[in-house]
Amino acid sequence: MLKGHRTWIFDNKPVIISTGTVGGPFEAKGKIPEAFDILHGDTWLEQDSFEKAQQVMLEEACQHAIKNSPIQKEQVEFFIGGDLINQITPTTLAAKTLDIPYFGIFSACATSMEGLALAAFIINAGGANYILSGTASHNSATERQFRYPTEYGGQKPPTAQWTVTGAGCGLLAKAGSGPVVTSATIGKVVDLGITDPFNMGSAMAPAAVDTIITHLKEMGVDHSYYDLIVTGDLGKVGREISFDLLHEKGVPIKEEQFEDCGIAIYKEEQPVLSGGSGTASSAVGIYGHYLKKLTEGKVKRILAVATGALHSPMSMQQKGSIPCIAHAVSIESGSDIS
Amino acid sequence: MLKGHRTWIFDNKPVIISTGTVGGPFEAKGKIPEAFDILHGDTWLEQDSFEKAQQVMLEEACQHAIKNSPIQKEQVEFFIGGDLINQITPTTLAAKTLDIPYFGIFSACATSMEGLALAAFIINAGGANYILSGTASHNSATERQFRYPTEYGGQKPPTAQWTVTGAGCGLLAKAGSGPVVTSATIGKVVDLGITDPFNMGSAMAPAAVDTIITHLKEMGVDHSYYDLIVTGDLGKVGREISFDLLHEKGVPIKEEQFEDCGIAIYKEEQPVLSGGSGTASSAVGIYGHYLKKLTEGKVKRILAVATGALHSPMSMQQKGSIPCIAHAVSIESGSDIS
Repeated sequence: MLKGHRTWIFDNKPVIISTGTVGGPFEAKGKIPEAFDILHGDTWLEQDSFEKAQQVMLEEACQHAIKNSPIQKEQVEFFIGGDLINQITPTTLAAKTLDIPYFGIFSACATSMEGLALAAFIINAGGANYILSGTASHNSATERQFRYPTEYGGQKPPTAQWTVTGAGCGLLAKAGSGPVVTSATIGKVVDLGITDPFNMGSAMAPAAVDTIITHLKEMGVDHSYYDLIVTGDLGKVGREISFDLLHEKGVPIKEEQFEDCGIAIYKEEQPVLSGGSGTASSAVGIYGHYLKKLTEGKVKRILAVATGALHSPMSMQQKGSIPCIAHAVSIESGSDIS
Repeated sequence: MLKGHRTWIFDNKPVIISTGTVGGPFEAKGKIPEAFDILHGDTWLEQDSFEKAQQVMLEEACQHAIKNSPIQKEQVEFFIGGDLINQITPTTLAAKTLDIPYFGIFSACATSMEGLALAAFIINAGGANYILSGTASHNSATERQFRYPTEYGGQKPPTAQWTVTGAGCGLLAKAGSGPVVTSATIGKVVDLGITDPFNMGSAMAPAAVDTIITHLKEMGVDHSYYDLIVTGDLGKVGREISFDLLHEKGVPIKEEQFEDCGIAIYKEEQPVLSGGSGTASSAVGIYGHYLKKLTEGKVKRILAVATGALHSPMSMQQKGSIPCIAHAVSIESGSDIS
């Protein structure tokens, strides 16, 4: 099952039998509103804190995935999730509501694919029949914790990104109908010394490139094996750096083959600077937008590369640089689809 | 491999081929200094922050485990770890130093056994040959983040606990000499509404009891199967509640069969109130103290039940209660030992 040093092959082909995605009003006005199963008209969701609103979005995404599947909640053995908020409390409280045995994980905005990789490994090896894996982020909760409350109106440079308010999850099963998860490559911490938390795309780009190149090498394929290689939240700045780095390192990926969830989600005229970010960026993008391309037959093979900046506000205050990671999961058309 | 709903059986018997444990000066004066491979004379470890000291302890524990094993660092496929500090930055930065592909996890003080359960599952299923799993905590870093800086001299009630300054890790392999990991039961979030962060033993007790009872039931054994059932950091208050709850629920566990790492680590006269806590409590206790009992032949079967309180300072300020979890891992004498 291990191929090379960092890659798993899933011979039993675990299936994503359903997904759930939730977004806020700003996402509803974006470029891909059809990617969301549920869209909310305001960011509070009738809760008394943004953190609770984030929790509710994750609960809704999971409940939607279960409702749209042939199984009952009680059949799901494990929930694997995490988020950006300190001690991942929104995810934990969603796990409590869901009442499903729980693995808490943290890879910042790479959490979605860390979770999907683990879920696929466990299902593939017979450790569960059904696993839910998901994450959520909330613009106001994240801004307050990592930078300033949005009410301050602080200005940002053009390299900064906009945290997605949303949630996305996938329900993985050992058999069924849907896209199949065929392999995963686990990230290493890559840190080239960038210390500007308003330029996370640049910080994350080398981690994305390291994981993509390792994945192709360990799988013994070239970039043309994939119809799309989709990153999580590099934004325009990080995507361009990654594109150039890949070419420099001998991976002549094509422009149209290399997309980013953080660029796909918002319209050009929305004030998101370099693009979307947050744990929900890749979760909503992959589960809500790109899997549709698979099920509709527009593409056959996607490499989903979620990218995470693993710093904390305190590690920034202590003048640390931004350690980054990227986890890649290969998702292909199910045999019943293609 | 799945038995019941929440339990994994590891038929291929992954082996803990080596361990590493690190402690501070207060731990050196405790009841089990022999549990530590490395003891430091001061809590700064020549670093300029407590968080960096915590990171260095984890690096030392991992490096010690590798040095004391027959393998090289480059042979370790994955590092699985997490800690209590926001965004688990000390663990992430240790993963960067170690330069090993990394799964970040978070279960508060149950992190040690979430990591060991995942490591055992992955090794057992052929997803790796060697995995390092570990965690660290630092009294001053944790107190500052969750309560007040220790310099304030804030008073605490007798139910409060003392965060262990230390680190513990295990190096798991598919074959070799050492204690074997035979099964694991994954926790559910249990929350009985306790809102006092100075009484986490009481909050965690029901989670520990839920996981222990589920484990025994799904494994089809009674409590006498284990020589010792060892919890992570219930402290005196939480242990007594758990003991009573187990008896109430029909598990007549014996006093001498039910130990707690948070009670084992410090002397009666040390001012730790209800006992030790922190992610390092179970890591140091299990990897440094209780595994010795296995290798010395004093006991043959241990159920290690790490317990975690999953709140954050913000979730407390927002008047939330304390959601808790416990993950259990069964560790038995290796055939080459017993």
